[in-house]
Amino acid sequence: MERTPRIARRMAEIAPFHVMDLLARAQALEAAGRDIVHMEVGEPDFPTPEPVVRAGQQALAAGHTHYTPAAGLPQLREAISGYYADRHGVNVPPERIILTPGASGALQLIMGVVVDPGNRVLLPDPGYPCNPNFVRLVEGEGIPVPVDATSDYQLTPQHLASHWDERTVAAMVGSPSNPTGTLATGEDLRALAGATAQRGGRLIVDEIYQGLVYEGEAPTALGETDEAFVVNSFSKFFGMTGWRLGWVVAPEAYVRELDKLAGNIFLAPPTPAQHAALAAFGDDTRAILEQRRQAFQQRRDFLLPALRELGFRIPGTPRGAFYLYADAGAFSDDSFAFAERVLEGAGVALTPGIDFGRHRAGAHVRFAYTTNLDRLEEGVARLARYLRP
Amino acid sequence: MERTPRIARRMAEIAPFHVMDLLARAQALEAAGRDIVHMEVGEPDFPTPEPVVRAGQQALAAGHTHYTPAAGLPQLREAISGYYADRHGVNVPPERIILTPGASGALQLIMGVVVDPGNRVLLPDPGYPCNPNFVRLVEGEGIPVPVDATSDYQLTPQHLASHWDERTVAAMVGSPSNPTGTLATGEDLRALAGATAQRGGRLIVDEIYQGLVYEGEAPTALGETDEAFVVNSFSKFFGMTGWRLGWVVAPEAYVRELDKLAGNIFLAPPTPAQHAALAAFGDDTRAILEQRRQAFQQRRDFLLPALRELGFRIPGTPRGAFYLYADAGAFSDDSFAFAERVLEGAGVALTPGIDFGRHRAGAHVRFAYTTNLDRLEEGVARLARYLRP
Repeated sequence: MERTPRIARRMAEIAPFHVMDLLARAQALEAAGRDIVHMEVGEPDFPTPEPVVRAGQQALAAGHTHYTPAAGLPQLREAISGYYADRHGVNVPPERIILTPGASGALQLIMGVVVDPGNRVLLPDPGYPCNPNFVRLVEGEGIPVPVDATSDYQLTPQHLASHWDERTVAAMVGSPSNPTGTLATGEDLRALAGATAQRGGRLIVDEIYQGLVYEGEAPTALGETDEAFVVNSFSKFFGMTGWRLGWVVAPEAYVRELDKLAGNIFLAPPTPAQHAALAAFGDDTRAILEQRRQAFQQRRDFLLPALRELGFRIPGTPRGAFYLYADAGAFSDDSFAFAERVLEGAGVALTPGIDFGRHRAGAHVRFAYTTNLDRLEEGVARLARYLRP
Repeated sequence: MERTPRIARRMAEIAPFHVMDLLARAQALEAAGRDIVHMEVGEPDFPTPEPVVRAGQQALAAGHTHYTPAAGLPQLREAISGYYADRHGVNVPPERIILTPGASGALQLIMGVVVDPGNRVLLPDPGYPCNPNFVRLVEGEGIPVPVDATSDYQLTPQHLASHWDERTVAAMVGSPSNPTGTLATGEDLRALAGATAQRGGRLIVDEIYQGLVYEGEAPTALGETDEAFVVNSFSKFFGMTGWRLGWVVAPEAYVRELDKLAGNIFLAPPTPAQHAALAAFGDDTRAILEQRRQAFQQRRDFLLPALRELGFRIPGTPRGAFYLYADAGAFSDDSFAFAERVLEGAGVALTPGIDFGRHRAGAHVRFAYTTNLDRLEEGVARLARYLRP
């Protein structure tokens, strides 16, 4: 006989992703023969670049299947350090770079070493849905701070001034941002680092979409301060989502603690992924990534005006990631119901705003341009027929 | 200017592994030209079996580099279910099997859904050093329960009776055990499941060394109860340490919560590892694993009497894993100092008992037979010269 489960209280506050219900429905429709245009998927449609795949295969052939050090292969930490120097002109010593099982692992480590029970971390709303849950897991509290187009959906020192209290220990930003695709400037990041330091707290910067930018560069916070935690990943720009490999660049004084926690809760990041990633910075891979970046830009340049034409409101020009965060208030103020209707009626899958927070979430949906231009055109045509019959 | 780090209180209670200091010293000695026999390493010396490596390479060639569902590939969950039926004659529905980033990921998920702040989890001392830290990460408390040879170093219902209090929510056992190599019988596991259930708690069983047994089988707790959490892994028996892939079999009522937490904190387990692991249950892989099992048995059969002959006391015959937990009280009651001396003086690396708990830890060291027979013989010869000059 099954017993009643006793479930930790935190789990009641960790919401499932609403988009998973839509995805399940989309798959059911597809199983029944319906064609669905997927504009809800948060990962590149491109497979891992061939030189990276080949490096992974060769590492396996060479028997590189054992544990690495908890902080990752020394030569990969060196390579990432070299990449920061090369691409961003920033000096980041390899000792401050800790490889992790995805950026998710990096966020777990940071919250584990920074957040005591009852501590608060300020987070932009809308923002990446898992962020408050990393804080909650270790008995802290993610505090959503409403942001909008007036600050490019980024936190500002003014937000910190009005939301920071004695329980707050950190503020977190993402640039380029999921779900909005907007960027923080170097000046913004420097100001945020100053504003957190002034309050005795830490800035955490999620840079996992770095490289996926369509006008200029996304500056790294590492060019502005050595005292922030900066999270990055091989998933999005480098096309290695399934390999689960990310990293954190930590202030020097935290490195030992992060390393200790990593050794305990992960043992080490995946070895095949680390060997494969050594090929991620080569010229041949870079050329492939540049082609893909251009493809994403082309998609954005098509999708942004097309959605506006349909009646979605998207302020400014989102300059990075592969998302457009659209005000669908002209159609609905219930983003989940709207996404359901659009899926059933138009055969287009979107992510409802309620997955990214509470602030005007019912009036927003996220479009991902992680499918090719033909499919995006088909999706827009279907939306046009459905929304303006 | 670097600021003083504010570090979460839990980190002061999470100890680094003492063996890492010894390992660093061993590497320094090796870099200076000294030969070291490694008997401290907790992973098989064998690389991943060739059919598994090939499956991983082929999956990469086929472009399987994207995220899988959070709980893992459906076909791998099916395959594991089939393995339980086949090898253990136990029916485990695939829906109850959740793939994780190593057994480490499984332990994180379990503690996340079961442990509220201040809750206690009973753990055998000696035991796997990371276990209390998984509990501590989510603000619970691992309670070490001293065990010894009279119960094969396993927890018993009597231990539960004397250590369980109103804050206790779970008890955890490992079979085969790290560091002792001892096993719990099916009857033991059934009794422990009953004793935890009777107190409204849960039993967590670490079975990651299952398959590495040298007399009979290590029974799975899944044959005794559907209400325990059972952790397993492709790391040790299947030789896939670096791939980082494990699983948890959960009571049905916890599956949804575990899946939700996994989606949030991991996104998904590594994709190449999952495709590779599909080849872990094939006949060709099984034949290789059986050869390796026999090699481990041969090593144990050499090492156990040889160590006793030298003056180490090892009660009974440890029947599983690849460890011997030896009372070195004839030589020292400071296991770290002893391990240091043996490393410097004999060129043999061991793990000090203090890495596994507090109970008579100063008088114990762990020998791992994860190196070949020639090297083990060399290690024993060096110890003989050093300890009985």
